[in-house]
Amino acid sequence: MNPQSLARACLDEMLKDDACSAALGMEVVNIDERCASVRMVVRSDMVNGHGLCHGGMIFSLADSTFAFACNSENHSALAAAGQIDFLAPAKLNDELTATATVVNQGKRKGIYDVTVVHQLQERIAIFRGHSHRLGIPTIPIN
Amino acid sequence: MNPQSLARACLDEMLKDDACSAALGMEVVNIDERCASVRMVVRSDMVNGHGLCHGGMIFSLADSTFAFACNSENHSALAAAGQIDFLAPAKLNDELTATATVVNQGKRKGIYDVTVVHQLQERIAIFRGHSHRLGIPTIPIN
Amino acid sequence: MNPQSLARACLDEMLKDDACSAALGMEVVNIDERCASVRMVVRSDMVNGHGLCHGGMIFSLADSTFAFACNSENHSALAAAGQIDFLAPAKLNDELTATATVVNQGKRKGIYDVTVVHQLQERIAIFRGHSHRLGIPTIPIN
Amino acid sequence: MNPQSLARACLDEMLKDDACSAALGMEVVNIDERCASVRMVVRSDMVNGHGLCHGGMIFSLADSTFAFACNSENHSALAAAGQIDFLAPAKLNDELTATATVVNQGKRKGIYDVTVVHQLQERIAIFRGHSHRLGIPTIPIN
Repeated sequence: MNPQSLARACLDEMLKDDACSAALGMEVVNIDERCASVRMVVRSDMVNGHGLCHGGMIFSLADSTFAFACNSENHSALAAAGQIDFLAPAKLNDELTATATVVNQGKRKGIYDVTVVHQLQERIAIFRGHSHRLGIPTIPIN
Repeated sequence: MNPQSLARACLDEMLKDDACSAALGMEVVNIDERCASVRMVVRSDMVNGHGLCHGGMIFSLADSTFAFACNSENHSALAAAGQIDFLAPAKLNDELTATATVVNQGKRKGIYDVTVVHQLQERIAIFRGHSHRLGIPTIPIN
Repeated sequence: MNPQSLARACLDEMLKDDACSAALGMEVVNIDERCASVRMVVRSDMVNGHGLCHGGMIFSLADSTFAFACNSENHSALAAAGQIDFLAPAKLNDELTATATVVNQGKRKGIYDVTVVHQLQERIAIFRGHSHRLGIPTIPIN
Repeated sequence: MNPQSLARACLDEMLKDDACSAALGMEVVNIDERCASVRMVVRSDMVNGHGLCHGGMIFSLADSTFAFACNSENHSALAAAGQIDFLAPAKLNDELTATATVVNQGKRKGIYDVTVVHQLQERIAIFRGHSHRLGIPTIPIN
């Protein structure tokens, strides 16, 4: 299997059980070795007390995108930490796209950066995630 | 109004429009000057591809708790950044409680720490939030 | 050896080769299991272009204190990451004291918090460090 | 004055009083609008108890580079926070080069990324700095 096909197979395996990303309406628009892009529309149940998209929803989008990227090589990995900076507010009905790229991937520990933009490409947030490989594959190896 | 009554009034104002915290089933169990506690049960639509509570849901709980604490003095404040470390996984049906306390509150910028525990008091995550006051009140001042 | 004596022995071993902490005039004022306090005076060669103590010097003090705390149990550990918030400026001749305490220590990964205050106990900075145990002892075990 | 000349003038003003960067042997190799590169050799007084370059020295290099970049537009700015991930150890006599670029610069708050590499271009550390403009110029405006 080439790297992109493997990344796709790992993603499919993760999505099978990922009720949360599905419930939030996330749609994967790109997946490849150590990178991923995911889209999500800000729904009325994602708005907070300031009338803006809840930071936790933006974090969730970034975190899922990060998870897909850091699990793209058939090494099951968990998020150990995440840091997010909110650059501009997202509003109801905004279409957000998060793109994750690798910063560093060691034997166990990985660092990935995610940028979240809205439909006019304004940056909404930047996210840095720290992952930890568990030492087990995501999908069975034949 | 004493500090706790003011904190309660600010919370009530925020909750009126906070569709997201409501949709996630969050319940405020304590509110006071610069601190707050919020409870949330891990539902089946909060589980990720590893069969564990999605990190974004834990972040959302921490972020809401942080928001209630940093908006408790009738200065409208937004989250500028958040950093979370995941210490132990949360599972389906776990009851999570997040508790926010102030680390530092300046004229504009605030730093708050949030600890998330489950029903047996094991720590699930620690969160540090950076807030920014907008210079406007949360509720009208009479 | 009791925990404090072990912590002292590990510290002594580290200090033998720690030319940097010595060059910066750091003085360990307390050492115990998973915690440490270190003092440093802001010298004229530690001041930056704003006439204030260089942030790197405050970080160095916090980082050394963190290192002594996370190496206190005879498991050699390295800093993997550090996050610092600068709360107030430190000035020439200020006497800074950094105090490190454990937040979480797993089998390999640790999180420690450090607070830096000056001689009048005002908080100068807060630091959160992530450590990684190497799987080797700091001092020989008899 | 064009942007690069202004950046150079701001740098010169900062370096006049920056005893710390001078004491650490830092040499600015590039300065421009919102970016900077600085070189530093790991001296024997920069080594820690593990025989490696002290993390605080790497942070100091990154922090100075960040400061030169975020002060390059004649708006005096202070570091509010810094986060560093240590990717590989630096050793005695290594020649480190830090390069800062802007991630986001608002009216007051800025975010800058710094990468530190050694003489063979291996990445030693990545740093993200948060700056805060004071509302005063660095150099007098004629």
